[in-house]
Amino acid sequence: MKISTEDFIDGIKSGNKRLIAKAITLVESTKPEHRSQAEELLKKILPLTGNSIRVGITGVPGAGKSTFIENFGRLAISNNKKVAVLAIDPSSAINKGSILGDKTRMEELAKEENAFIRPSPSSGFLGGVANTTFETMMICEAAGYDYILIETVGVGQSEVLVSDITDVFLFLKIIGGGDELQGIKRGIMEMVDIIFINKVEESNQQKAKNTRLELKRALDFLPAKEKDWKVPVLLGSALHNEGLKDVYQKIDDFISLKKNTKRFDEVRTQQSEKRFEYWVQEYILSMMKKDNSVEEAYIQHKKNASDLISNPSTEAKLFVEKFLRDSKSEIRDSENI
Amino acid sequence: MKISTEDFIDGIKSGNKRLIAKAITLVESTKPEHRSQAEELLKKILPLTGNSIRVGITGVPGAGKSTFIENFGRLAISNNKKVAVLAIDPSSAINKGSILGDKTRMEELAKEENAFIRPSPSSGFLGGVANTTFETMMICEAAGYDYILIETVGVGQSEVLVSDITDVFLFLKIIGGGDELQGIKRGIMEMVDIIFINKVEESNQQKAKNTRLELKRALDFLPAKEKDWKVPVLLGSALHNEGLKDVYQKIDDFISLKKNTKRFDEVRTQQSEKRFEYWVQEYILSMMKKDNSVEEAYIQHKKNASDLISNPSTEAKLFVEKFLRDSKSEIRDSENI
Repeated sequence: MKISTEDFIDGIKSGNKRLIAKAITLVESTKPEHRSQAEELLKKILPLTGNSIRVGITGVPGAGKSTFIENFGRLAISNNKKVAVLAIDPSSAINKGSILGDKTRMEELAKEENAFIRPSPSSGFLGGVANTTFETMMICEAAGYDYILIETVGVGQSEVLVSDITDVFLFLKIIGGGDELQGIKRGIMEMVDIIFINKVEESNQQKAKNTRLELKRALDFLPAKEKDWKVPVLLGSALHNEGLKDVYQKIDDFISLKKNTKRFDEVRTQQSEKRFEYWVQEYILSMMKKDNSVEEAYIQHKKNASDLISNPSTEAKLFVEKFLRDSKSEIRDSENI
Repeated sequence: MKISTEDFIDGIKSGNKRLIAKAITLVESTKPEHRSQAEELLKKILPLTGNSIRVGITGVPGAGKSTFIENFGRLAISNNKKVAVLAIDPSSAINKGSILGDKTRMEELAKEENAFIRPSPSSGFLGGVANTTFETMMICEAAGYDYILIETVGVGQSEVLVSDITDVFLFLKIIGGGDELQGIKRGIMEMVDIIFINKVEESNQQKAKNTRLELKRALDFLPAKEKDWKVPVLLGSALHNEGLKDVYQKIDDFISLKKNTKRFDEVRTQQSEKRFEYWVQEYILSMMKKDNSVEEAYIQHKKNASDLISNPSTEAKLFVEKFLRDSKSEIRDSENI
């Protein structure tokens, strides 16, 4: 049964979780007819979007992201906020499998009336996952969620994608036990706005403080991402609800600062431009795959490249020329999308 | 003065470094007339390519990559091999600047008759840098270089790009002193074939052994990249020429294994396909920028997206349709490239 766009909008506005979930499934779909309705829906809810605080959260597996989100989310709810949790989990470059797996997580948060949890979208090429997550976020915002928490695993490009669609970027770090595996990428340190050292207990407090010192020293070497913002390194335990209020406050401070300096809107504008660029790539790729003769040509030229009949760039050029030549008929089709 | 393709080929075959350098400048150029000659040249030298061992080398700044390459390169030369050194240094996601800087490096290696050193290409979007480096590698192979060493800094996507164009991937690690900053990404550990712990001296030998143990433990958690290959963790000092012969031998072992299991050709075929895909994107983007009306439309639709007149995906769709509609005239131009 097809749900009308008006029904979707009413459902989203009234906070109907079933319809919110179905609307997300709609924007995640790559079927042309779904995509067409998705765009109609997104255009209509556009005026209702943009009012949340968009929080990116990263950390290696084992850093306690789920527990953090669960208890941080409940803290926000106790402050009369509505919280949506999304996940970005692009496959790593080599192993195609999901890292988050299908664990049952955030059980307590999931029970809350004012929480909405959506697992990772199933697929998408580079940028595609972030596109979908961005539109999922729009739906959650239209439904009145105040905080959108976007979780990512620290693999490949995922942090860049998340920092491309969020207002504040949070890095969860743990100390000791396999330090080698949880090192910090330079890339992350440049992206991060707040660091939370998790799993701090009495027994490892001194170690945690040393880690904080080293992190601060490392941060001093890096150029500031936001002028007048010194990345805070907070200590705590998400499991025992320690330090979460500090994080909550720092997020607030950071958003206030960005709004005062006009950076908040400036960055969001840049992000919209980037989304546009990703989508241009996505549409072109999808058009290539639509026409059989174009797809056959793609496969043939690719094979020529791998068989070393000529070099990849020459084969790519020949293909692109064919693609553009054949595109007239493509457009006629696409206008019915 | 324009150099003819035949002169380029003769120069490359005879190992004329000046002409090799000029041929590389040609393939790095984005001007259509250069690109056209580049493709003619690459097609003609194609039969001469593919015979080197392509080695990717990564490690954080300070890991001693330059010293390693300098002394490893001289070791290879002492074994009657010719060595070319290339660098991939894409700008990091946030700071556009180069990380390698303009240091004078590898002075001793640069003096060797059988060495050729080429600094990082100046620009390129994601994938573009690797495309250019791949073609630079083809030229070096045609000129008879036996080892192509491709250096990268451990930032963002660069390792993925390098592992996409090499046969063996080497990770340089140092111990102690700012461990927080030189941690290991999960991504790298999945890509790596050989690890070399550098800067090991008598005073830190025990620490180095502990690090090796931890690395081996970490590797045990990861799926094997190549069946029957246990990633070796070697200790040494590039500066004092210690451990480099082990690395040389391990590279040899690894290449032999890959050739025996047919994985060597299999992976290279996959890499060619990937190159083709990157080039398709590159050509489409460059065509978009060629036509003024297309570029204006691009800017306008992008602005609509950032002004929130409608959502980015709708604007992207409108633009792509216009682009394909206008592409007929593009093709006529492009056929003269």
